Amino acid sequence: MTSAYQHLHRTFSRLSRFGHLSAIAGWDMQTMMPPQGNQARSEALAEMSVLCHGILTAPEVGQWLAQAHQETLNDVEQANLREMQVAYQNAVLLPASLVEAKSLAGARCEHAWRSQRPANDWQGFAANLKEVVRLTREEAEIRAQAGGTSRYDALLAVFEPGMTSAQLDGLFGDLKQWLPDLLQKVVAKQQAEPCLTPTGPFDLEKQRQLGLQVMSLLGFNFDGGRLDVSTHPFCGGVPEDVRITTRYNEQEFLSAMMGVIHETGHARYEQNLPREWLGQPVALARSTAVHESQSLLFEMQLSRSEPFLKVLQPLATHMFGNQPALEVENFVRLNQRVQPGLIRVDADEVSYPAHVILRYEIEKALVEGEIEVDDIPALWDEKMQAYLGLDTRGNYRDGCMQDIHWTDGAFGYFPTYTLGAMYAAQLFQTANRAIPTLQRDIAEGDLSALFEWLRQNIWQHGSRFPTAALITNATGEPLNPAYFRQHLESRYL
Amino acid sequence: MTSAYQHLHRTFSRLSRFGHLSAIAGWDMQTMMPPQGNQARSEALAEMSVLCHGILTAPEVGQWLAQAHQETLNDVEQANLREMQVAYQNAVLLPASLVEAKSLAGARCEHAWRSQRPANDWQGFAANLKEVVRLTREEAEIRAQAGGTSRYDALLAVFEPGMTSAQLDGLFGDLKQWLPDLLQKVVAKQQAEPCLTPTGPFDLEKQRQLGLQVMSLLGFNFDGGRLDVSTHPFCGGVPEDVRITTRYNEQEFLSAMMGVIHETGHARYEQNLPREWLGQPVALARSTAVHESQSLLFEMQLSRSEPFLKVLQPLATHMFGNQPALEVENFVRLNQRVQPGLIRVDADEVSYPAHVILRYEIEKALVEGEIEVDDIPALWDEKMQAYLGLDTRGNYRDGCMQDIHWTDGAFGYFPTYTLGAMYAAQLFQTANRAIPTLQRDIAEGDLSALFEWLRQNIWQHGSRFPTAALITNATGEPLNPAYFRQHLESRYL
Repeated sequence: MTSAYQHLHRTFSRLSRFGHLSAIAGWDMQTMMPPQGNQARSEALAEMSVLCHGILTAPEVGQWLAQAHQETLNDVEQANLREMQVAYQNAVLLPASLVEAKSLAGARCEHAWRSQRPANDWQGFAANLKEVVRLTREEAEIRAQAGGTSRYDALLAVFEPGMTSAQLDGLFGDLKQWLPDLLQKVVAKQQAEPCLTPTGPFDLEKQRQLGLQVMSLLGFNFDGGRLDVSTHPFCGGVPEDVRITTRYNEQEFLSAMMGVIHETGHARYEQNLPREWLGQPVALARSTAVHESQSLLFEMQLSRSEPFLKVLQPLATHMFGNQPALEVENFVRLNQRVQPGLIRVDADEVSYPAHVILRYEIEKALVEGEIEVDDIPALWDEKMQAYLGLDTRGNYRDGCMQDIHWTDGAFGYFPTYTLGAMYAAQLFQTANRAIPTLQRDIAEGDLSALFEWLRQNIWQHGSRFPTAALITNATGEPLNPAYFRQHLESRYL
Repeated sequence: MTSAYQHLHRTFSRLSRFGHLSAIAGWDMQTMMPPQGNQARSEALAEMSVLCHGILTAPEVGQWLAQAHQETLNDVEQANLREMQVAYQNAVLLPASLVEAKSLAGARCEHAWRSQRPANDWQGFAANLKEVVRLTREEAEIRAQAGGTSRYDALLAVFEPGMTSAQLDGLFGDLKQWLPDLLQKVVAKQQAEPCLTPTGPFDLEKQRQLGLQVMSLLGFNFDGGRLDVSTHPFCGGVPEDVRITTRYNEQEFLSAMMGVIHETGHARYEQNLPREWLGQPVALARSTAVHESQSLLFEMQLSRSEPFLKVLQPLATHMFGNQPALEVENFVRLNQRVQPGLIRVDADEVSYPAHVILRYEIEKALVEGEIEVDDIPALWDEKMQAYLGLDTRGNYRDGCMQDIHWTDGAFGYFPTYTLGAMYAAQLFQTANRAIPTLQRDIAEGDLSALFEWLRQNIWQHGSRFPTAALITNATGEPLNPAYFRQHLESRYL
């Protein structure tokens, strides 16, 4: 007789296979699809999303979940069942009408935002955003009642299970104490250090070749993945076939190179998820923040460190020829430059947390109903002034309208960027203790011990352990923000 | 209340959307996918094919079809209902166990064939092929009993509804009377005409640029399609986003160029299918042979004609520089060269029908149980000798093992190539009568009147009319092979 667990296993395999087709079609949409394919593609993906929601929330799935808890399961199966339960619960709570309404309002808001942002049209944007916020609050209320949490915590749990706003308040409250001061000191210190800007143009095909070389150095498996171009870089595809993207600017190659490194961090996590459980929830990456910890470990901890920049520099000059701005000392400075700015995605790692904390504070208040959409611009200006010393008044385009996240209702996502940075620092410093030769290895371009450590401590576990357990197993303690502070102070002061 | 027809409309829309995802994932598999993606992709596509089979053959679909015949429908809806009925009937006849067994046996046979063919391993191949033939006969028997036809006719109807082996016997019997003689005469005539071979290498990026130029000239819509590279050229994707492929050889560019033209013929049919019914069966291309008529009209009727070769020649020399072999007279000869050879896909249009007739005669006898798999090599040798004067004994690789079609059980497909050639000749000669300036237009590179004629007479109708009606409406008479003979004689004698 087929056990309830076996039924669930088969159901989640089917979902994973259908998800495979959506992932590839989604990647294609951003990289290959000609414009006239858009409507048919959107309809096809929406039809698939309705199908998968129906499969996941079918009554028998709920019954199998209840029965499976009574069956004899090994450790991995129990972890898989826990993840199945979370996926089911997250999906089944919301009435189909709310899912559809939120999806439509989000699509409308995002679509309009693409022209409203360049037009600096806050009023037009706010009208759409209000509807997204209204539906998000409805969703949060339903999730909060089911989970016995606050509304914001209920949304946070979708992206980062186990994390709470109480914990975030502590982490971010601490950061706010020392970060603005650190930032000022670093900026003052760097003002005394001249830094030349490289002179382009930098041939796009050569930039691509450099990206491929760096991916090879970082262990990307090209038999199970690709590098392509898209407007917004991302890591997509499926674990068996990971597709990363970047974008090129003929005048400046370092952003694309560091972008490739960042996505390669995501990609190696995906490429090294546990093969034997593939297609099951337990084989998926642990969480948004843990995923970001891998990209930031690759980009910030490893690749912007002086020893590894000295490995990257000859690759760059070999490709583009040398010039004073690409000499070693200047190359290091270029890649460690700190400069508070208006735009989050362009931010260095010292000012980045300020962007995140600002958004966290605003979105939490918004979801909890303590503020309304009309209050956002004033709060944004006030916090940008306080945290980064920048005046953004009237500049909605480069202020509260700069991100895509809120347009389609992804409230609760922003904190994972800084959580990822903190996990990355903690993991990297632990790896340095565990591998005594690591700094020398890195200087020689030999990353094998680092990758083996990551494979054993993070990648191979998929979602087998909750995040707190995964991090404690890997580093000997739960999330400790002191590592991040120590990293920033030792690199930049 | 929702009518039965509306239920069907919704069901076929869903199938079309799911088919969209499979089409893009299938295209990706041939053009983009790294090798390690293969297993997961195959599983995802198989899961989708099971889903779609289930949706199409659900009991309520049968009931809706019966009810819809009683409802008030306009002409297009009636045609759509007819096509839905055919799709349902084709799918519902076969037990799921047979579909799965045939799919597995076909996949196994095809997979092994990829290494057996280069190894010339007929014995190994025959063992797998026997199982495919056994299951194909089972399928044919079921379809034949349901349709009251012969077994081979039942398979033929899947690819070419309305066509029968009685009609093919007539058409091909006639061809066999005059084709071998014509072929001999053409070869003798061309032996007196010296023909130089172009000297490479021909830069692959330039070959791609030439292909894109020719596609533009032929009206390909790049906002709704792409050109890429694959081992076996094809036209895929969906009507809103048509993906054609080619392959390049650095020593020889004419094959890739003519291949692009051929696929562009398929693509323009797809890109001009009726937009207002998209997603419904009535909006699909009429049949395999009608599809091939469009690619062959573009390649053989138009592009290998002397006036259009004189339009193509300056594009080629502009791209690659001139050389004696690319001078106009030699360029025309190169593209009109007739040379009987062992390989069907490399054949010129005079010897091509001989390849098709040979396969038709063998596969019909095989399906009807008049011969067995072990009889194929001897029959192949005998017919190659009789129709093309070539000795293939012992050369299975370039003989009866050269094609992929039989490996996965596509019996009944081969005749559509030559039916397509005949339709192409009939359509092109009709267009020439309907557009008195056509030959002059073509010489000037102005194809707008030809495309408008094709749009009005073929493309815009999708599957609204049965093939015989479509051709009669377009040309004033049903399929008449005299046009094809006349075309070959006037071009080559």
